[in-house]
Amino acid sequence: MGADGDEDEDKRHTTLPQHETQAAIMRATYRALCDRGYANLTMQAIADEFDKSKAVIHYHYDTKEDLLVAFLEYLLENFGRTVDTEAMMTLGAEADPAERLLELLEILLVGSPERRRGETDFDHWNLVVAMLEVRSAAPYNGEFRRQLTTNFQTVEAMVIAILEEGIDRGRFRAIDPEATAVLLLSVINGCRIYQVTLEREDVAELVHVALQAMVTDWLSLPTESDTDSRQR
Amino acid sequence: MGADGDEDEDKRHTTLPQHETQAAIMRATYRALCDRGYANLTMQAIADEFDKSKAVIHYHYDTKEDLLVAFLEYLLENFGRTVDTEAMMTLGAEADPAERLLELLEILLVGSPERRRGETDFDHWNLVVAMLEVRSAAPYNGEFRRQLTTNFQTVEAMVIAILEEGIDRGRFRAIDPEATAVLLLSVINGCRIYQVTLEREDVAELVHVALQAMVTDWLSLPTESDTDSRQR
Repeated sequence: MGADGDEDEDKRHTTLPQHETQAAIMRATYRALCDRGYANLTMQAIADEFDKSKAVIHYHYDTKEDLLVAFLEYLLENFGRTVDTEAMMTLGAEADPAERLLELLEILLVGSPERRRGETDFDHWNLVVAMLEVRSAAPYNGEFRRQLTTNFQTVEAMVIAILEEGIDRGRFRAIDPEATAVLLLSVINGCRIYQVTLEREDVAELVHVALQAMVTDWLSLPTESDTDSRQR
Repeated sequence: MGADGDEDEDKRHTTLPQHETQAAIMRATYRALCDRGYANLTMQAIADEFDKSKAVIHYHYDTKEDLLVAFLEYLLENFGRTVDTEAMMTLGAEADPAERLLELLEILLVGSPERRRGETDFDHWNLVVAMLEVRSAAPYNGEFRRQLTTNFQTVEAMVIAILEEGIDRGRFRAIDPEATAVLLLSVINGCRIYQVTLEREDVAELVHVALQAMVTDWLSLPTESDTDSRQR
């Protein structure tokens, strides 16, 4: 973000507060990514999806790379909000760790209930396709790797916290929380990518079934009701 | 592959048998993919890595897409050979299904022992980067999706066969073989991609640890020696 005269003028041309302009640019970036793919994503393509000029985008973001890093941050913020409002408001922080873990994994795998009902700007699978393209550029781009790592570590910390709480409360076995969290996030990442790159419609559904079995039959210790029903 | 005069002449110019020429083109494709990335992968870039002319490549493959689909087939053939020679020759078909499963998962995750020792043309992680780029084009390319699905289903069938045999021999719990196989392949796919796109060197190692725990503590039934040691 520079501060010379032209850019100040562009700013006066915008009628929205700065954060709303940025949010509008993020939505335009998302639509351009989904429509044209990463290779064809230009500042002009984003401006075409947006009711402002290319200069407005340049006022906020110097390069396409800056803009995409901001887009990754924006996705993380949106995801954090989804998890806070959907999963935690429904279940509450006191809910069973196994239920909370399954709720979080489901949101990561197939999108939030709100998104699954089509009530958000972003379709989950379109977003997975767009993110796959950004991710494929990451081995060559340190800024993308840095922001993807921040996103990964935020979600990893959520999963580790649920696993540790479950172990403390005697709900989960004494598994390695970090290794298990990275395993679970790898399942989500790999499965979402398979779902959009294979001629198979069933991978997310099969993985959803297997994750439930994994959390119930491996991570969780038998509950009193399991023991009761076995003794009867 | 056409059959007009120019192409026949190109063919006479090659001194290698056809399958050796094709294998040489595949190796050149691999090097060009690793060096330049998918976006910059042109027939000329591949010819530059190859001691023959671009016309020789065009004799064998009409388009870059045909060539990349052949490259995916070639990777699958190579992988099949690796698994047959490394895992099955070492352990044998009669080996413990849990050991065979862990061996297969390790080869998929971090490469064959031969490849880890640097004794193959392909470095495992360079190949993961190259494949990530091809995969990111798959949502827009039906031929890539078709070949990636063939590759996926070949490996899925290997994993299902080991799981079913383990269940039949009383070594594994009665888990759902298909859902579990897709879960395991998703772990591998997601983890390999994290390893090359995050500022984290430890993801493959952590997932390797978690996979061993998963196979030993969840999929496997307690063996007699486990029971013995518990009774003592």
